[in-house]
Amino acid sequence: MRAPAVNVLGMTRFLTETGRLEAFSDGVLAVIITIMVLELRPPQGTDLRSLLPTLPTVATYALSFVFIGIYWNNHHHMLRASRGIDGRAMWANLHLLFWLSLVPFSTAWLGRNPAAAGPTVFYGVILFFDAVAYALLQRALLVVNGRDTPFAKAVAVDIKGRLSIALYVFAIAAGFFSTIVSDAIFVAVAIMWLIPDRRFEPLIKIE
Amino acid sequence: MRAPAVNVLGMTRFLTETGRLEAFSDGVLAVIITIMVLELRPPQGTDLRSLLPTLPTVATYALSFVFIGIYWNNHHHMLRASRGIDGRAMWANLHLLFWLSLVPFSTAWLGRNPAAAGPTVFYGVILFFDAVAYALLQRALLVVNGRDTPFAKAVAVDIKGRLSIALYVFAIAAGFFSTIVSDAIFVAVAIMWLIPDRRFEPLIKIE
Amino acid sequence: MRAPAVNVLGMTRFLTETGRLEAFSDGVLAVIITIMVLELRPPQGTDLRSLLPTLPTVATYALSFVFIGIYWNNHHHMLRASRGIDGRAMWANLHLLFWLSLVPFSTAWLGRNPAAAGPTVFYGVILFFDAVAYALLQRALLVVNGRDTPFAKAVAVDIKGRLSIALYVFAIAAGFFSTIVSDAIFVAVAIMWLIPDRRFEPLIKIE
Amino acid sequence: MRAPAVNVLGMTRFLTETGRLEAFSDGVLAVIITIMVLELRPPQGTDLRSLLPTLPTVATYALSFVFIGIYWNNHHHMLRASRGIDGRAMWANLHLLFWLSLVPFSTAWLGRNPAAAGPTVFYGVILFFDAVAYALLQRALLVVNGRDTPFAKAVAVDIKGRLSIALYVFAIAAGFFSTIVSDAIFVAVAIMWLIPDRRFEPLIKIE
Repeated sequence: MRAPAVNVLGMTRFLTETGRLEAFSDGVLAVIITIMVLELRPPQGTDLRSLLPTLPTVATYALSFVFIGIYWNNHHHMLRASRGIDGRAMWANLHLLFWLSLVPFSTAWLGRNPAAAGPTVFYGVILFFDAVAYALLQRALLVVNGRDTPFAKAVAVDIKGRLSIALYVFAIAAGFFSTIVSDAIFVAVAIMWLIPDRRFEPLIKIE
Repeated sequence: MRAPAVNVLGMTRFLTETGRLEAFSDGVLAVIITIMVLELRPPQGTDLRSLLPTLPTVATYALSFVFIGIYWNNHHHMLRASRGIDGRAMWANLHLLFWLSLVPFSTAWLGRNPAAAGPTVFYGVILFFDAVAYALLQRALLVVNGRDTPFAKAVAVDIKGRLSIALYVFAIAAGFFSTIVSDAIFVAVAIMWLIPDRRFEPLIKIE
Repeated sequence: MRAPAVNVLGMTRFLTETGRLEAFSDGVLAVIITIMVLELRPPQGTDLRSLLPTLPTVATYALSFVFIGIYWNNHHHMLRASRGIDGRAMWANLHLLFWLSLVPFSTAWLGRNPAAAGPTVFYGVILFFDAVAYALLQRALLVVNGRDTPFAKAVAVDIKGRLSIALYVFAIAAGFFSTIVSDAIFVAVAIMWLIPDRRFEPLIKIE
Repeated sequence: MRAPAVNVLGMTRFLTETGRLEAFSDGVLAVIITIMVLELRPPQGTDLRSLLPTLPTVATYALSFVFIGIYWNNHHHMLRASRGIDGRAMWANLHLLFWLSLVPFSTAWLGRNPAAAGPTVFYGVILFFDAVAYALLQRALLVVNGRDTPFAKAVAVDIKGRLSIALYVFAIAAGFFSTIVSDAIFVAVAIMWLIPDRRFEPLIKIE
């Protein structure tokens, strides 16, 4: 999808189209976001109150759903704004998908033990690596696009990305003392990202 | 896919193409509709009669399959009819996918306890939130398309949407007294939607 | 993808493009074909011989994989050959996906009880309904394309489709007496379909 | 996507477009790569140390994730470089997907018994058949493209493919004596493939 535009700009040396990469990433993210629901087991009772014990699991699921949704959304905007991808960006993308694929695992553990330090810290650790992997993909795409490009300007000031990583580190440390603080930070980061990333929108308009 | 048409109309300020949103939604819906089948466990016996106890599970699965199929179908028509999407519509879409992703959970509980009030009411509650989330997505797309557009006219009289929400509320209330009444309402709503939504078809023809 | 060609032919009254229908069907078929592998549980032992008891499960999985693969392949050719789809064809397609989604269920039961009559008969019953649903989709697409079209000529003599349905009926009946005979028929039908369906290939060449 | 280019070259006799084949393969690979994560079960304890016993499972998962990622990457480049596909290539592709779909099974067994000979050998056997199936797909695509084509030249010297198959055979044999040697070979093959396949890149640039 990007490739033809790229050819016009005479930048064909190492770029390939992003279409199939996006399609594969969408597929993986769609499976990740959905298989988490398999952790929601029907309660033993048949009473509406028997749903109450599943609430932490449902809440953790909802939080992870929002995080994966945010990654999909930002990934979508970032790849659309990029001129193309190269081999390094392709592996950076798979690296990101790997860490995101561990979200169902950390979600399942936290959902079963919502107030325990270990699962809370681990949940933060996975979110931390997700954010680092996303930053690495962004950097790999920066190399593809080059300096002084609209893409470079768009990602130059990555306040939300850096702040998220810092907040995850803080949430991990806080988890050993108060899981409520960690939970609050996770929710705060999610809310921060629910505001769409305006950086790439002008680029998309250019097309 | 929509985006080029949008550019022609000079509406590029906040619209992005719907292609990848549709692809991601299709992926999530495809996984939702299919992982429900994991709840169908092979019976212990090897007798054809040992399939009988799985009938309620299969019937609930079939009902949920039809509902997800209806959402996919209507979602498909509505997004095709829209000029594009903006950030708000993107989140409204993820919000819809979240509530639809809880269908396998409510289906599993109802399939195991087909005549119990709790699971029946809960099944109705999830369908209710699915319908509300769909209405919110429709409203978000209405803002994208603007008043006095073919899209606005197509969704102006949303009788089936409003009637479904009302019927779900009735089914939820009825579930506390008679689960058969609730089941009948669920089936009736599904049949009502199996008739394709003619509202968007003229829009598609225009292209 | 089909839609533009259709507009050229002046047949826009009730046709919509097949692209997203194919994408959704591919998604569902990809999940169906893959989640069957979840039934392959690692053996308790760590000996290569401990794999032996899983052989019937693996063999049944392989057979079902081939059947889903055949449906994907034929579905692909048939939809590409069709001028487009209408609402009825869309529901016929979902109906087909429903019956195909039960294949993991019948596969799991047969894989656990490869020599039992019940699971063998049930496996045949699901294959029978798959084939009937496929024939109904073919008929719905015939209405979309109209008589005296290349599509109509291509599906006029559906020997393999009719023969398959007859063989499934025979395999179902045979299953009550000898599951080996049923198994042989299932394998024979699969081999018959592995030969690609030449009927639609000339249509694809035309484009 | 390839088909139009193919028509230009007057090679329409048996070629069809690769688009939907790639989409279906992406879907299957996305599900394969993601459902493996279902094997990562949350630990019983709530201590970070209780994650330690899951490390072999996570490590095996990571290795298989890399292998599936490599196959997706190479599959992507190879299909993009091919003029198109025919019926034989379509079945060769499904044959490859079948062997790749067994990776979650071999991964689950090895993850539970990381130091046992049986699961290590079996893991190697599945990787061996994956590589053979990939070579068969390459050969089928070679027939589609014909001799003296850029595709034929690109795959003429398949050192990495042949070396991988030889290394898998060696790892299988070594597994009976030392699973560490086998593990080292698996990792070495993965690292070898992480270097992107330059063979097809010039072909993509041509377009």
